[in-house]
Amino acid sequence: MGRIIVEVMPKPEILDPQGKAIAGALPHQGLNIFTDVRQGKRFELTVEGDVTEADLEAAKKAAETVLSNPVIEDVVGVYAEEQ
Amino acid sequence: MGRIIVEVMPKPEILDPQGKAIAGALPHQGLNIFTDVRQGKRFELTVEGDVTEADLEAAKKAAETVLSNPVIEDVVGVYAEEQ
Repeated sequence: MGRIIVEVMPKPEILDPQGKAIAGALPHQGLNIFTDVRQGKRFELTVEGDVTEADLEAAKKAAETVLSNPVIEDVVGVYAEEQ
Repeated sequence: MGRIIVEVMPKPEILDPQGKAIAGALPHQGLNIFTDVRQGKRFELTVEGDVTEADLEAAKKAAETVLSNPVIEDVVGVYAEEQ
Protein backbone atom coordinates (compact mmCIF):
# COMPACT_ATOMS: atom_id res chain seq x y z
CA MET A 1 0.00 0.00 0.00
CA GLY A 2 1.58 3.26 -1.08
CA ARG A 3 0.59 6.83 -0.33
CA ILE A 4 0.94 10.00 -2.36
CA ILE A 5 0.97 13.42 -0.66
CA VAL A 6 -0.61 16.37 -2.49
CA GLU A 7 -0.09 19.87 -1.13
CA VAL A 8 -2.23 22.85 -2.18
CA MET A 9 -1.77 26.47 -1.04
CA PRO A 10 -3.65 29.70 -1.80
CA LYS A 11 -1.93 31.74 -4.53
CA PRO A 12 0.39 34.36 -2.94
CA GLU A 13 -1.70 37.27 -4.25
CA ILE A 14 -4.94 35.79 -2.85
CA LEU A 15 -6.14 37.11 0.54
CA ASP A 16 -5.98 34.30 3.13
CA PRO A 17 -8.40 35.33 5.93
CA GLN A 18 -7.90 32.02 7.77
CA GLY A 19 -4.17 32.57 7.84
CA LYS A 20 -4.62 36.16 9.04
CA ALA A 21 -6.95 34.98 11.83
CA ILE A 22 -4.36 32.45 12.99
CA ALA A 23 -1.56 35.01 12.78
CA GLY A 24 -3.67 37.21 15.06
CA ALA A 25 -4.29 34.38 17.56
CA LEU A 26 -0.71 33.17 17.99
CA PRO A 27 0.53 36.14 20.09
CA HIS A 28 -2.15 35.29 22.68
CA GLN A 29 -0.24 32.01 23.17
CA GLY A 30 2.99 33.98 23.65
CA LEU A 31 4.08 33.11 20.10
CA ASN A 32 5.24 36.42 18.60
CA ILE A 33 7.94 35.31 16.16
CA PHE A 34 5.76 34.55 13.12
CA THR A 35 5.50 37.42 10.61
CA ASP A 36 2.94 35.63 8.38
CA VAL A 37 0.77 32.51 8.43
CA ARG A 38 -0.91 30.88 5.43
CA GLN A 39 -3.23 27.87 5.50
CA GLY A 40 -3.62 25.38 2.69
CA LYS A 41 -4.62 21.74 2.22
CA ARG A 42 -2.75 18.45 2.49
CA PHE A 43 -4.11 15.26 0.94
CA GLU A 44 -3.09 11.63 1.39
CA LEU A 45 -4.05 9.47 -1.61
CA THR A 46 -3.69 5.71 -1.02
CA VAL A 47 -2.87 3.30 -3.85
CA GLU A 48 -2.48 -0.49 -3.92
CA GLY A 49 1.15 -1.65 -3.94
CA ASP A 50 4.10 0.71 -4.24
CA VAL A 51 3.66 4.14 -5.86
CA THR A 52 4.48 4.08 -9.60
CA GLU A 53 5.17 6.91 -12.08
CA ALA A 54 1.67 6.34 -13.50
CA ASP A 55 0.23 6.75 -9.99
CA LEU A 56 2.07 10.06 -9.59
CA GLU A 57 0.75 11.27 -12.96
CA ALA A 58 -2.79 10.36 -11.88
CA ALA A 59 -2.26 12.20 -8.57
CA LYS A 60 -1.09 15.30 -10.47
CA LYS A 61 -4.22 15.16 -12.62
CA ALA A 62 -6.37 14.75 -9.47
CA ALA A 63 -4.54 17.69 -7.87
CA GLU A 64 -5.24 20.00 -10.80
CA THR A 65 -8.84 18.93 -11.47
CA VAL A 66 -10.43 17.94 -8.13
CA LEU A 67 -8.13 18.78 -5.20
CA SER A 68 -7.45 22.44 -6.07
CA ASN A 69 -9.14 25.44 -7.62
CA PRO A 70 -6.61 26.67 -10.21
CA VAL A 71 -8.05 30.20 -10.08
CA ILE A 72 -7.09 30.79 -6.43
CA GLU A 73 -4.79 27.91 -5.49
CA ASP A 74 -1.42 26.46 -6.50
CA VAL A 75 -0.47 22.79 -6.30
CA VAL A 76 2.88 23.05 -4.46
CA GLY A 77 3.72 19.40 -4.01
CA VAL A 78 2.88 15.92 -5.35
CA TYR A 79 5.20 13.14 -4.10
CA ALA A 80 5.24 9.57 -2.84
CA GLU A 81 5.30 9.35 0.94
CA GLU A 82 8.41 7.63 2.29
CA GLN A 83 7.36 4.31 3.87
CA MET B 1 13.11 35.12 5.81
CA GLY B 2 12.58 31.48 6.73
CA ARG B 3 9.46 29.35 6.54
CA ILE B 4 8.26 26.47 8.70
CA ILE B 5 5.77 23.93 7.35
CA VAL B 6 3.21 22.42 9.74
CA GLU B 7 1.11 19.48 8.60
CA VAL B 8 -2.07 18.37 10.38
CA MET B 9 -4.23 15.35 9.47
CA PRO B 10 -7.45 13.92 10.94
CA LYS B 11 -6.75 11.03 13.34
CA PRO B 12 -7.00 7.69 11.46
CA GLU B 13 -10.03 6.58 13.49
CA ILE B 14 -11.90 9.83 12.79
CA LEU B 15 -14.45 9.82 9.91
CA ASP B 16 -13.22 12.17 7.13
CA PRO B 17 -16.34 13.09 5.11
CA GLN B 18 -14.38 15.52 2.92
CA GLY B 19 -11.93 12.81 2.00
CA LYS B 20 -14.77 10.38 1.27
CA ALA B 21 -16.46 12.97 -0.97
CA ILE B 22 -13.25 13.46 -2.95
CA ALA B 23 -12.68 9.71 -3.19
CA GLY B 24 -16.15 9.47 -4.70
CA ALA B 25 -15.48 12.28 -7.20
CA LEU B 26 -12.16 11.07 -8.60
CA PRO B 27 -13.57 8.16 -10.68
CA HIS B 28 -15.68 10.69 -12.61
CA GLN B 29 -12.35 12.12 -13.82
CA GLY B 30 -11.25 8.64 -14.90
CA LEU B 31 -9.04 8.34 -11.81
CA ASN B 32 -9.84 4.91 -10.36
CA ILE B 33 -6.53 3.92 -8.75
CA PHE B 34 -6.97 5.58 -5.35
CA THR B 35 -8.32 3.29 -2.62
CA ASP B 36 -8.61 6.07 0.01
CA VAL B 37 -8.34 9.87 0.22
CA ARG B 38 -7.86 11.92 3.39
CA GLN B 39 -7.77 15.70 3.63
CA GLY B 40 -5.85 17.66 6.24
CA LYS B 41 -4.25 21.08 6.61
CA ARG B 42 -0.88 22.53 5.62
CA PHE B 43 0.44 25.73 7.18
CA GLU B 44 3.33 27.99 6.19
CA LEU B 45 4.66 30.02 9.13
CA THR B 46 7.10 32.80 8.16
CA VAL B 47 9.89 33.96 10.50
CA GLU B 48 12.53 36.68 10.14
CA GLY B 49 15.98 35.36 9.17
CA ASP B 50 16.80 31.67 8.96
CA VAL B 51 14.75 29.11 10.92
CA THR B 52 16.31 28.33 14.34
CA GLU B 53 15.67 25.49 16.81
CA ALA B 54 13.75 27.96 18.97
CA ASP B 55 11.56 28.83 15.96
CA LEU B 56 10.82 25.14 15.40
CA GLU B 57 9.90 24.71 19.08
CA ALA B 58 7.54 27.69 18.83
CA ALA B 59 6.01 26.19 15.66
CA LYS B 60 5.44 22.88 17.47
CA LYS B 61 3.69 24.74 20.30
CA ALA B 62 1.57 26.65 17.74
CA ALA B 63 0.75 23.36 16.00
CA GLU B 64 -0.49 21.72 19.19
CA THR B 65 -2.37 24.71 20.62
CA VAL B 66 -3.76 26.76 17.69
CA LEU B 67 -3.26 24.93 14.38
CA SER B 68 -4.79 21.58 15.36
CA ASN B 69 -7.53 20.14 17.53
CA PRO B 70 -5.76 17.40 19.53
CA VAL B 71 -9.04 15.53 20.05
CA ILE B 72 -9.58 14.79 16.34
CA GLU B 73 -6.31 15.71 14.63
CA ASP B 74 -2.65 14.68 14.67
CA VAL B 75 0.29 17.00 13.92
CA VAL B 76 2.19 14.89 11.36
CA GLY B 77 4.97 17.27 10.41
CA VAL B 78 6.80 20.40 11.62
CA TYR B 79 9.94 21.26 9.61
CA ALA B 80 11.87 24.14 8.08
CA GLU B 81 11.13 24.59 4.40
CA GLU B 82 14.21 24.16 2.20
CA GLN B 83 15.07 27.53 0.64
